Amino acid sequence: MTGRDGGADLEPIGEFDPVVILVRPQLAENIGTTARAMANGGLFHLRIVAPRDGWPQERAWPASSGAHRILDNAQVFETVDDAVADLHRVFATCPRPRHVVKPVMTARGAAAELRVASTRGLRTGILFGPERAGLDVEDMARADTLVRYPLNPKFMSLNLAQAVLVMAYEWYLTEDMTPPRDLMTNETHVATKGELENFMSHLLRELDDCGFLRNEQKKPGMIRNLRHFFTRGEVTEQELRTLHGVVSELVSARKARR
Amino acid sequence: MTGRDGGADLEPIGEFDPVVILVRPQLAENIGTTARAMANGGLFHLRIVAPRDGWPQERAWPASSGAHRILDNAQVFETVDDAVADLHRVFATCPRPRHVVKPVMTARGAAAELRVASTRGLRTGILFGPERAGLDVEDMARADTLVRYPLNPKFMSLNLAQAVLVMAYEWYLTEDMTPPRDLMTNETHVATKGELENFMSHLLRELDDCGFLRNEQKKPGMIRNLRHFFTRGEVTEQELRTLHGVVSELVSARKARR
Repeated sequence: MTGRDGGADLEPIGEFDPVVILVRPQLAENIGTTARAMANGGLFHLRIVAPRDGWPQERAWPASSGAHRILDNAQVFETVDDAVADLHRVFATCPRPRHVVKPVMTARGAAAELRVASTRGLRTGILFGPERAGLDVEDMARADTLVRYPLNPKFMSLNLAQAVLVMAYEWYLTEDMTPPRDLMTNETHVATKGELENFMSHLLRELDDCGFLRNEQKKPGMIRNLRHFFTRGEVTEQELRTLHGVVSELVSARKARR
Repeated sequence: MTGRDGGADLEPIGEFDPVVILVRPQLAENIGTTARAMANGGLFHLRIVAPRDGWPQERAWPASSGAHRILDNAQVFETVDDAVADLHRVFATCPRPRHVVKPVMTARGAAAELRVASTRGLRTGILFGPERAGLDVEDMARADTLVRYPLNPKFMSLNLAQAVLVMAYEWYLTEDMTPPRDLMTNETHVATKGELENFMSHLLRELDDCGFLRNEQKKPGMIRNLRHFFTRGEVTEQELRTLHGVVSELVSARKARR
């Protein structure tokens, strides 16, 4: 029931989070890797329609990398109609729909709608077809909306777990507040401008002393360039301490050589 | 050199598209599935640093589902330093960075920066660590920026190809213009409001005739409700023809019964 990644620890599980519905899956390993991809994106509800080799199948569990609770709680249905009967809105992933009149959404667009539906207390599901053939026309007629991932049109083939991962990832992102860029600083802090200026003074004093800034005409520009370099990225307090040390050591080595 | 999905047909290849760099990968199959994930997202340049079992390895090709050209053109290096020497900007994927002072970006944020760099004519690369341990601290010190995917913090473990797929997918999306929602209509067209009104008139005439709208007080509201239903989604010309037929047939069956 547990895995190195805490598969037993997937709560809280949202009652109205989307249900992943594998339609006629062929390989037990793919059901397992699907569960892993669901866990990555924080999805928990798995339904399986007419699995080729029956259910449960032992080989699914080791393939799930610890997402055992998803497999333990998977529900099995004989038909797509049965699997979607209690749902309010059904999406069907379909890389190359033909002869279908149906709304088509990107994974990102569909994820946004799934989140809205979940907030409204509607039960939703996403159909994923069998490995070889994908969903058939009858399956698609049960869905409100098709989902087609924007991917290289010359190379669309995804395996089942990868298809589930893209959808689960987009689902997770709809609630994620991670800034696009952040600075990891761990035990130290970003230096204040005063701390940086303190280092710049130290550096410039020593550069003056050793004659590096002797060309009075070029001096202001050289100082400005150094200032630009040291302000291009955030500097931490700890890095400034190291840089102070670097300058001092270079100076004392030079003085010792004299 | 070819695959069912057109692996031989991945051009045009952008000179400044990001390079995927697998650092000390262990399993040949994972190098193959990485190539497949790259092809999904339109990435072509693969570099391999110190592959555990050497290179080339036969088992990579069948695992790539036809992305053979990526494997055929993969370059092998002994060290990360060698593999990044000609690049201008290096990202390192890292699910749980510790004791590192470094900018951290989401996959989406990093993809946007990769696209900008590519447009500026800068060569970029993304490091992916070995299956078991991930990148080590020395590898990370070679990167400008870390990439951490927003995923369920209780279940972050991705296999190598899945990690590459998320990055490749986000790379592809930076240039993708697919609308979040569209209607597939294939051989037919969305009906005009005039065509829809023509059907509504047909339906209302027959409903009047059979007495369904006999309650004069409720009639305007009933008609409005029907109108709301038929305008909730786009209707196609072909569907309107079918609906005209459905109404006519129900009417003639009723008349025949009399």
